Amino acid sequence: MSFFDKLTAAIDSNDSLLCVGLDPVLEQMPNRYRSGDSQWMTDLLRWNLNVISETYRYVCCYKPNIAFYEALGPAGMELLRQTLSSIPNEIPVILDAKRGDIGSTAAAYAKACFDLPNVDAVTASPYLGRDSVDAFTAYKGKAVFVLCHTSNPSAGDLQTLLVDGRPLYLHVAEQAVTWSPNVGLVVGATYPGAVRDVRAIAPDAWFLVPGIGAQGGDIERTVAAGLCGNGQGLIISASRGVTQAEDHKTAARQFREAINQARRQVASA
Amino acid sequence: MSFFDKLTAAIDSNDSLLCVGLDPVLEQMPNRYRSGDSQWMTDLLRWNLNVISETYRYVCCYKPNIAFYEALGPAGMELLRQTLSSIPNEIPVILDAKRGDIGSTAAAYAKACFDLPNVDAVTASPYLGRDSVDAFTAYKGKAVFVLCHTSNPSAGDLQTLLVDGRPLYLHVAEQAVTWSPNVGLVVGATYPGAVRDVRAIAPDAWFLVPGIGAQGGDIERTVAAGLCGNGQGLIISASRGVTQAEDHKTAARQFREAINQARRQVASA
Repeated sequence: MSFFDKLTAAIDSNDSLLCVGLDPVLEQMPNRYRSGDSQWMTDLLRWNLNVISETYRYVCCYKPNIAFYEALGPAGMELLRQTLSSIPNEIPVILDAKRGDIGSTAAAYAKACFDLPNVDAVTASPYLGRDSVDAFTAYKGKAVFVLCHTSNPSAGDLQTLLVDGRPLYLHVAEQAVTWSPNVGLVVGATYPGAVRDVRAIAPDAWFLVPGIGAQGGDIERTVAAGLCGNGQGLIISASRGVTQAEDHKTAARQFREAINQARRQVASA
Repeated sequence: MSFFDKLTAAIDSNDSLLCVGLDPVLEQMPNRYRSGDSQWMTDLLRWNLNVISETYRYVCCYKPNIAFYEALGPAGMELLRQTLSSIPNEIPVILDAKRGDIGSTAAAYAKACFDLPNVDAVTASPYLGRDSVDAFTAYKGKAVFVLCHTSNPSAGDLQTLLVDGRPLYLHVAEQAVTWSPNVGLVVGATYPGAVRDVRAIAPDAWFLVPGIGAQGGDIERTVAAGLCGNGQGLIISASRGVTQAEDHKTAARQFREAINQARRQVASA
């Protein structure tokens, strides 16, 4: 089953556009997961597995960011494998890796990412152009989300420079969606104006939208700006707002409901 | 000792601007390293260690690209650790990782890279702007080489788009060198015109220049375009041309000599 087939099936069955980020940072682990001895890797795994078991009925996908696993060394990569293996088959996974290298090297990155269990899609940088992304879309059924307008404060250093009177990120959007039908775009919720402008350029593309919750992005404005005509087209990602919550299930349901309420407002407008 | 101190010391003692890429691809391993049984990870390590022991007197640094190690799974990351550990202390190492993510995630990538043994510098993408690079330069003595104009065929998809009448990569060069004194630039040898134009914008910056040898970049034109007034400023990287050679030592010496001959031509011009 391809990423997008799995995605739309999960959106339908869970009535959700919520993606939960699985980013284990020891300092951010809720106290209830701390066993008090040196078994912090086991604690981190228990944290991830609990988040998954409590939220998988309320999400459309999961998004582990590989940086946090790499930072934990070899045991961290084993934590990633075990976390990925525990994700139910019907929920697709975007590995947030933001890779980008020349063709032959990109092929090595693609192998590294897609050899991991249950990885259906990855994020990639557009800076090296099309051949750096082709290596990922060459994998049948896999998807690639190309960075377009990111959620961080420095996003504008490059992304909003004007090219022919239009910001660079719109040129990225316009180009990237032609590279493969399996290309989506990363557009941060912290810049709803950017979400709107990218939607105008790429009316049918899937957007992976990080930045709601801890980073301050607003759900209502994001959905109003980016929803497709069919009420889909957005994968809205929250990490800390769910994984650090007292109750992961309640937090995920609240995010899902806030998103769905915004979807209904768009539908009725 | 900082990366740049180690680098200039190695340049002086080995009279070399040559960097050797350590990119283990099983299909490209010379036959003499194949033991014929299933011990191919041991074979790859022996290959890397032989390249290092035969070339470390003729290089100014090594540049393993982490993608090729990641593609080999957990054993590949152990191969990277053992390879890094075997590099003589006086030769600096640039880990080619091309990372780029928002601030908190970039900090996790920086930890992952600099926790590896003997890594003195990394490569990073500029697409997310300054805060994605700050996490790396925050490590005292470490350096970051920011992608400016890459060596691949699609480099121009984004990098040469015109911003205020100048290609994007020159804006990247201009910005990135202000982010930290420990920022260098990646400028591919396959586009000598780009090397020349970036040098005009960033007269004192260190350039990491991939693309000579297998990728077709020309040493003479690269050196003429990019050498600093002091006869340095370039780290010229070759991978397959050395690692797949019959004799690594001879290949490295030939690259070094070709580069030095081009340096002498510039000095006498």
